[in-house]
Amino acid sequence: LPDNSDPASMKMIIIGELINSTRKAIKKAIDEQDVAYIQDLALKQEEAGADYIDVNAGAYVHDEAKHLVWLVEKVQEVVSKPLALDSPDPKALEAALKVHKGIPMINSISAEKERYKQLVPLVRESGAQVVALCMSDEGMPETADDRLEVAKRLLSDLDADGINLTNVFLDPLIKPVSVNGEYGPQALDAIDRIAALGSGAHITSGLSNISFGLPHRALLNQAFIVLAMGRGMDSAIVDPLDKKKMSLVKAAEVILNLDSYAMNYLKASRAGKLI
Amino acid sequence: LPDNSDPASMKMIIIGELINSTRKAIKKAIDEQDVAYIQDLALKQEEAGADYIDVNAGAYVHDEAKHLVWLVEKVQEVVSKPLALDSPDPKALEAALKVHKGIPMINSISAEKERYKQLVPLVRESGAQVVALCMSDEGMPETADDRLEVAKRLLSDLDADGINLTNVFLDPLIKPVSVNGEYGPQALDAIDRIAALGSGAHITSGLSNISFGLPHRALLNQAFIVLAMGRGMDSAIVDPLDKKKMSLVKAAEVILNLDSYAMNYLKASRAGKLI
Repeated sequence: LPDNSDPASMKMIIIGELINSTRKAIKKAIDEQDVAYIQDLALKQEEAGADYIDVNAGAYVHDEAKHLVWLVEKVQEVVSKPLALDSPDPKALEAALKVHKGIPMINSISAEKERYKQLVPLVRESGAQVVALCMSDEGMPETADDRLEVAKRLLSDLDADGINLTNVFLDPLIKPVSVNGEYGPQALDAIDRIAALGSGAHITSGLSNISFGLPHRALLNQAFIVLAMGRGMDSAIVDPLDKKKMSLVKAAEVILNLDSYAMNYLKASRAGKLI
Repeated sequence: LPDNSDPASMKMIIIGELINSTRKAIKKAIDEQDVAYIQDLALKQEEAGADYIDVNAGAYVHDEAKHLVWLVEKVQEVVSKPLALDSPDPKALEAALKVHKGIPMINSISAEKERYKQLVPLVRESGAQVVALCMSDEGMPETADDRLEVAKRLLSDLDADGINLTNVFLDPLIKPVSVNGEYGPQALDAIDRIAALGSGAHITSGLSNISFGLPHRALLNQAFIVLAMGRGMDSAIVDPLDKKKMSLVKAAEVILNLDSYAMNYLKASRAGKLI
């Protein structure tokens, strides 16, 4: 059985994002049923420290379920970490949940009425961890206030629907600072205020949106993950093969006193994983 | 005349720390009056983005003033940025202030009665910027509360003594996380609360203490400077030749909306300064 991450740990929960069919090389590998390519990428992400391996077959509009099931089966042949089943489609998720061994993450539910209603039974019955996007039928959030309001509604609804809030990963939805300079501070402020709710829910996000439209995107993503950790984000959906980013995460864990006696940091140092 | 950094800018104010006589190579260069070595290091720091070049002759117990004056003169022959005159000794500072062209920084005053009393006239008369250590006769601060209390006293005393608080750089004094895991959170909390005072004073610190006793110190220092910026620190006393750290500072400025339209970031990118 997959070993889910230790619930008592305060370390960042890393969701490896690379097996995503919207990426060209992945689409090609799925098209060609290139098992070795997919399994190698899954293993590399696990080795780099991913706690969940995200799998996405969303590029297959007409047979997403079939391809998602294939990804789950092939990835679980080689990794012991649980997967994040990345789809808004209840049929694809239902099929993937049937074959996934152990307790996965569902990525993702939102406060959009139809999506919420369709997915919440799957979340409850599977006991899965679940990413909950701070997005409602009114659209993408703009300010920290918007995000906080949707976050509160999600927490209240999920709790009422029998979901243990410690299984919930709220995603405040990060927007590019190249579009509006205030999007960085607004996102960090949202993280701060969601963390201050003390609901027991995690906070995660796909970070790379922050750097869209600017050069040296990896650099901006590295700075953002550290800033977000400083405000209370405890999970991220990222490329775990960026060794510098993962090193900075481990360093930030030490400084934020999330890594007792720097044990995890020292272990990573000895293993040659820090740069 | 040296061009002091733009007071309207919200960018981090970087104090280049490398010309310090407690470093072996610097002591040797001063002993040998190796002008080329000192000037090269000054130029490199300016080129890397230092807003102030720190000069320290503290290793010369009996003739600190003479060596500090020599450093000021030699460094100002080649750089246009002002210097940070790094001494607690009023005689050394007085001599250095006499030869420094333009308005320097004095590094540093503290809330220790004798030191404060001796240095505050020099600060007032020179119109210098001044680093003010959150340290009193009761010793080094331990908690965020300790730091806040000393910071408030310094702000109140400096204001009463006619110092413009926008010239003040409060230093919360960073202690190694290897000694106590809570020192990281306490330092960040102190920065947060000092910034929230809204006094107009800057917040700076020698960062590298944070990583004392741990491997990969540069990595920890990089994570810490980003975390501290996220809590309101707007200056740092650092090695500006660490290109990755300076890159992360520029990236964090973009995310924190301290760099309008990412103009400074894009300029650094075009100049090949980002990694």
